[in-house]
Amino acid sequence: MVGGGRGAFIGAVHRIAAAMDQQIELVCGAFSSDPDRSRASGADLFLPAERCYGTFQEMIKAEAALPAGERMDFISIVTPNHMHFPPAKMALEHGFHVLSDKPATFNLAESKKLAGIVKTTGQLYGLTHNYTGYPLVKEARDMIRAGKLGKIRKVVVEYPQGWLATRLEATGQKQAGWRTDPKRSGAAGCMGDIGTHAENLAEYITGLQIAELAADITSFVKGRKLDDDANVLLRFNNGAKGVLHCSQISVGEENNLNIRVYGELGGIEWHQRYPNTMYVKWLDQPQQIFRTGLGYLGKNAAAATRTPPAHPEGYLEAFANIYRNFASHIRAVSDGRKLAKDDPALDYPKIQDGVRGMAFIEAVVKSSRKNAAWTKLDV
Amino acid sequence: MVGGGRGAFIGAVHRIAAAMDQQIELVCGAFSSDPDRSRASGADLFLPAERCYGTFQEMIKAEAALPAGERMDFISIVTPNHMHFPPAKMALEHGFHVLSDKPATFNLAESKKLAGIVKTTGQLYGLTHNYTGYPLVKEARDMIRAGKLGKIRKVVVEYPQGWLATRLEATGQKQAGWRTDPKRSGAAGCMGDIGTHAENLAEYITGLQIAELAADITSFVKGRKLDDDANVLLRFNNGAKGVLHCSQISVGEENNLNIRVYGELGGIEWHQRYPNTMYVKWLDQPQQIFRTGLGYLGKNAAAATRTPPAHPEGYLEAFANIYRNFASHIRAVSDGRKLAKDDPALDYPKIQDGVRGMAFIEAVVKSSRKNAAWTKLDV
Amino acid sequence: MVGGGRGAFIGAVHRIAAAMDQQIELVCGAFSSDPDRSRASGADLFLPAERCYGTFQEMIKAEAALPAGERMDFISIVTPNHMHFPPAKMALEHGFHVLSDKPATFNLAESKKLAGIVKTTGQLYGLTHNYTGYPLVKEARDMIRAGKLGKIRKVVVEYPQGWLATRLEATGQKQAGWRTDPKRSGAAGCMGDIGTHAENLAEYITGLQIAELAADITSFVKGRKLDDDANVLLRFNNGAKGVLHCSQISVGEENNLNIRVYGELGGIEWHQRYPNTMYVKWLDQPQQIFRTGLGYLGKNAAAATRTPPAHPEGYLEAFANIYRNFASHIRAVSDGRKLAKDDPALDYPKIQDGVRGMAFIEAVVKSSRKNAAWTKLDV
Amino acid sequence: MVGGGRGAFIGAVHRIAAAMDQQIELVCGAFSSDPDRSRASGADLFLPAERCYGTFQEMIKAEAALPAGERMDFISIVTPNHMHFPPAKMALEHGFHVLSDKPATFNLAESKKLAGIVKTTGQLYGLTHNYTGYPLVKEARDMIRAGKLGKIRKVVVEYPQGWLATRLEATGQKQAGWRTDPKRSGAAGCMGDIGTHAENLAEYITGLQIAELAADITSFVKGRKLDDDANVLLRFNNGAKGVLHCSQISVGEENNLNIRVYGELGGIEWHQRYPNTMYVKWLDQPQQIFRTGLGYLGKNAAAATRTPPAHPEGYLEAFANIYRNFASHIRAVSDGRKLAKDDPALDYPKIQDGVRGMAFIEAVVKSSRKNAAWTKLDV
Repeated sequence: MVGGGRGAFIGAVHRIAAAMDQQIELVCGAFSSDPDRSRASGADLFLPAERCYGTFQEMIKAEAALPAGERMDFISIVTPNHMHFPPAKMALEHGFHVLSDKPATFNLAESKKLAGIVKTTGQLYGLTHNYTGYPLVKEARDMIRAGKLGKIRKVVVEYPQGWLATRLEATGQKQAGWRTDPKRSGAAGCMGDIGTHAENLAEYITGLQIAELAADITSFVKGRKLDDDANVLLRFNNGAKGVLHCSQISVGEENNLNIRVYGELGGIEWHQRYPNTMYVKWLDQPQQIFRTGLGYLGKNAAAATRTPPAHPEGYLEAFANIYRNFASHIRAVSDGRKLAKDDPALDYPKIQDGVRGMAFIEAVVKSSRKNAAWTKLDV
Repeated sequence: MVGGGRGAFIGAVHRIAAAMDQQIELVCGAFSSDPDRSRASGADLFLPAERCYGTFQEMIKAEAALPAGERMDFISIVTPNHMHFPPAKMALEHGFHVLSDKPATFNLAESKKLAGIVKTTGQLYGLTHNYTGYPLVKEARDMIRAGKLGKIRKVVVEYPQGWLATRLEATGQKQAGWRTDPKRSGAAGCMGDIGTHAENLAEYITGLQIAELAADITSFVKGRKLDDDANVLLRFNNGAKGVLHCSQISVGEENNLNIRVYGELGGIEWHQRYPNTMYVKWLDQPQQIFRTGLGYLGKNAAAATRTPPAHPEGYLEAFANIYRNFASHIRAVSDGRKLAKDDPALDYPKIQDGVRGMAFIEAVVKSSRKNAAWTKLDV
Repeated sequence: MVGGGRGAFIGAVHRIAAAMDQQIELVCGAFSSDPDRSRASGADLFLPAERCYGTFQEMIKAEAALPAGERMDFISIVTPNHMHFPPAKMALEHGFHVLSDKPATFNLAESKKLAGIVKTTGQLYGLTHNYTGYPLVKEARDMIRAGKLGKIRKVVVEYPQGWLATRLEATGQKQAGWRTDPKRSGAAGCMGDIGTHAENLAEYITGLQIAELAADITSFVKGRKLDDDANVLLRFNNGAKGVLHCSQISVGEENNLNIRVYGELGGIEWHQRYPNTMYVKWLDQPQQIFRTGLGYLGKNAAAATRTPPAHPEGYLEAFANIYRNFASHIRAVSDGRKLAKDDPALDYPKIQDGVRGMAFIEAVVKSSRKNAAWTKLDV
Repeated sequence: MVGGGRGAFIGAVHRIAAAMDQQIELVCGAFSSDPDRSRASGADLFLPAERCYGTFQEMIKAEAALPAGERMDFISIVTPNHMHFPPAKMALEHGFHVLSDKPATFNLAESKKLAGIVKTTGQLYGLTHNYTGYPLVKEARDMIRAGKLGKIRKVVVEYPQGWLATRLEATGQKQAGWRTDPKRSGAAGCMGDIGTHAENLAEYITGLQIAELAADITSFVKGRKLDDDANVLLRFNNGAKGVLHCSQISVGEENNLNIRVYGELGGIEWHQRYPNTMYVKWLDQPQQIFRTGLGYLGKNAAAATRTPPAHPEGYLEAFANIYRNFASHIRAVSDGRKLAKDDPALDYPKIQDGVRGMAFIEAVVKSSRKNAAWTKLDV
């Protein structure tokens, strides 16, 4: 693991997600750029001191030098955005698979470069767009793939939060600090942090791509350099239209990632706040409520569920689904097994998703600078 | 009443709304352009044949000729959009007040003309943007007026419907017929029919005005001439931003007029489907659920409620609130009573709202023709 | 109208319900036992002074003396419980139909007597168990009648309120006053006021009868003479079991009349707070959401709806459905038309429902006195 | 681990719950009464063959013989009910702590015996009444403890399920098989399986004890020997009243454990289906929505949450909270640290809860046999 030392947020999430299914063991880490802190963090996690490294470079080199059966299998990158690319590149080039927090890189150029490295090295690369790990998100995608909703016409995806409605970064709050800092976060604030989740979710569920967009982004809180709110018109590659809006100044909102998709025959509605419920809508029939774990769901939703019917799953299970599939894929590769195209083990976000996410961020920023001019996403 | 004969929809709604509070009596009507049909419709309503007129012109003239105590006090206009202006103009000019269905007129120019006539004649003019009649909508407005949410930053307003997801107008369905016909509906379809409600609601609740917008409207159903879906970026006159989207092809949606408003201190969320519930959000406190009829609500919400705590109110009661306030205003005028500025009797949409609605429609159409270029609403 | 003068609650509800459909005109009233107050109340309602009577006796006599075409057709009784029987009896015996607020009478004996008078006089008698007026309640009943849920096994019906959680009657609040007074309310408080609604709803929807019950009723608020909370085990005449609980001390609850019914094949769930939504549950299929006004509903739900799809209906519309059906029945009787057994005009609560309601109240009180011993309802 | 081999349900849940926080490592198991199956199950879990035992007796003896630092610290019992007591007893007596699935034992007598053994041996004993692990359940308890709701008057707790609405046990379904078999499940079916969860939740949240109850239990499905539905009147030791109902024939219900508690000042409402939302109700103020992870919650809710604000937690996290607290307690004991009375590590169900659960089951069965006679819980 790179990053995720004491006081970090997403590192702990990754570790729980990895541990949950008892398929992955944390064996080493460069938890902090401060070696002492890295070692202390590792000790909290019952790791031997010799595998708590001061830098990711040190870790990758040392691990690569270990015998095949003893060294780590892959690295998890859980650092702020500007520190995603360097360890990913180095790990891939030293023969390690990589599972990275999103967005893939600091900017689009880096992500394209990374895509090249993934291709060249042949190592696996996964990206924790964790919301695609929810069983009902998979069910929605499968319904649309199977044509049950007909041709898709409209998508409304939104991710309002309220936690940055005041200038929290000025209080020393660490999470707020790097997210609002262009040097660590990248060209966008809110858009990079949560807008990309919305974009990824919309493309994952519909199987469509955003062809062009018109974006109006704003920094409402005085003194903040990056956007904390955004409204975007979308046009998809099949002619569908849509809206994406996200915000970190929508007071009182938590992680309200919501999506509605309408096709010619039906629609779906899903809210991350209540992730085990999905509303399915039909032309002349009553709306249906799909629920996680029930017998009428398809095989991918079922595979993404750990417990029998009707035990609420949460954020950590969805996150763990990314880890579990990624680990299964690694195991298949190690074992030399070839997976069928629709094997659940292949169902996790990859570098292409990362490139699209970065292209989305850049298009949003570019469009907004031109007063919401239509801007293409051509990757 | 002008329009609203057998088979019409909104005419019956107006009559129920007028009757509910036992303050208004239907005394005459030109219910149909076919005199026989008009008379038959009037007979259904227990009206004497001599006051069921063949045309609104006939009605207005005949009624104006009656002694003061016997003639109608005001007319209700419940015809398709292209027939709003002519009877409104004539009635006002013959000394009658006018309560009209929305949108105010067929186009912006007409609405400006009508505003002039209202001013000149001094008669009262009301517009049934009925959703502003809901008690909790009034509470939201009052909270914002009182500064409880702080400066408004973001507005998300939406009105998805699904009933025109197929080409219903081709089946002879009357409601679909005129709404999708540019000659009777005007420059916009979905936008004129329901988008204006969304616009009006946003301006009513926030007390702000949409300064400019960027709109992307679409006709998804083949062969349809007017828009059946629209996505719009909004900028308000105080710097707030927002999104308005509406649709008649969002399969499975009913009349899902929804609004969320966020200020610096708090936010509100209201759904017309569950009109007696409003979510109120705060910076660091639990969300609250405001409910129609309860004691903690303000005086305007209370005045708009007919029953003691906790009996669900619906669409018809909200509609009736427009009628009741309008009738109270007429009565005050007749009695020569001067009303305080915040008297509930003055709380109904007026010609200015109508003009803004028409300006909104025209701006949307214009913006969309220019590929969603920013377009001002300057009325 | 008998009762319902200034300051009363349910009288105004009845008048709105009667006026809404423009089929019924209020022509006279004995609004208060104080003749001046009665006349003043009548004046508020635009009634001529000569038809505002000081007592119901005076009214019934005077109206009966009018020519057939001029006198009232029926009386509405909106007085406290102890004053239901006397005007009902007298009106029926003078040839007037009666629509009475619930419960039918002060005690079971009176209700049986009244049933006899209804039978003997042949006049129509309706009872405003208004919750059965909701469209989706009718849909639920029709689904069960049609066997869609299979044999019914379990019923959970509940009506929690919180408004009497403190000793409100000690503050002079009029509604609280008579409801907690055994002399005006009868043998039960909460049970008579709202428990009977729950009982009536359960029997209406399921078509079953409560065969026996075991009740534990309580007065939680010190100094209160009648029950303000009750928990009851139910056994139905087909072997189904259930629970009925109601309360007026459940802090924060409004009029949360809720019902769940489960059969061998499916179940339904309905909440009065959100009356336009009903959840329908199936053995192995996703739950469905039925919504008022949509095309897939049956004819009785459709007949009980005033507006096309998806405009929320409320308490007053449900109440008005009782009035409308009752008025249609009177009109059919006046016209000498014979109605089919399933004519919607016959769909309103009648004296039998009133008798069962009173039997329910008496069984509850009796059971509770015997420490929740099983007690039969044998009427 | 005792039980939980291939094909079992709750064993996997326990393992995930134990693994999630990376504080507990599965080191051995007697996963099945069939030694081969036990070993195969262990291999699935990456356990060495020598620590996959054929019987719990074998395991406990062998582990007890290992050096202190190498042997297991505690056992998890995840067998059917009739096999809870024997391994618990033996483990305790061999110096191991015990975490057992609920109900504690097969019958009340056994549970009392077990309580004695726990006391004598001084080992720790935990019981996975997992629903008490939810953060908002802890918040509810803390609010009531702090007196915020005032004296408690009414409790409504319910646990409807629908999965046994047909005779599933006749199809060979393993979960249904033992749960409906008196020899493996005990005196009650539905009541033992889920009714005890409802009982435990009510007592945990309110801090009250059920003093007596009147129960009406039923086997609706033909051929089934144990109850599949139950309705119970409750009286608590402080004078509060209530209702508990649970069911496995409520078609379409999942694990709808719901609770409402009303005190003199306020009330709470919580639904396991949406475990991160709790409604808090007040006398004259708007209802509040408490949400997991937000800053206004108390320290115990916070301690029970793994992620920062607003990431939905689920069933597995709640379950893991039991494990985590139990492990923390063991560690404190091992370290010789004395914990403060309100240390979260002490917040897990113990043998006393198990005894009360068994007493509850026996009282329900006894009451129902006497036609719902009031029956005391005197343990």
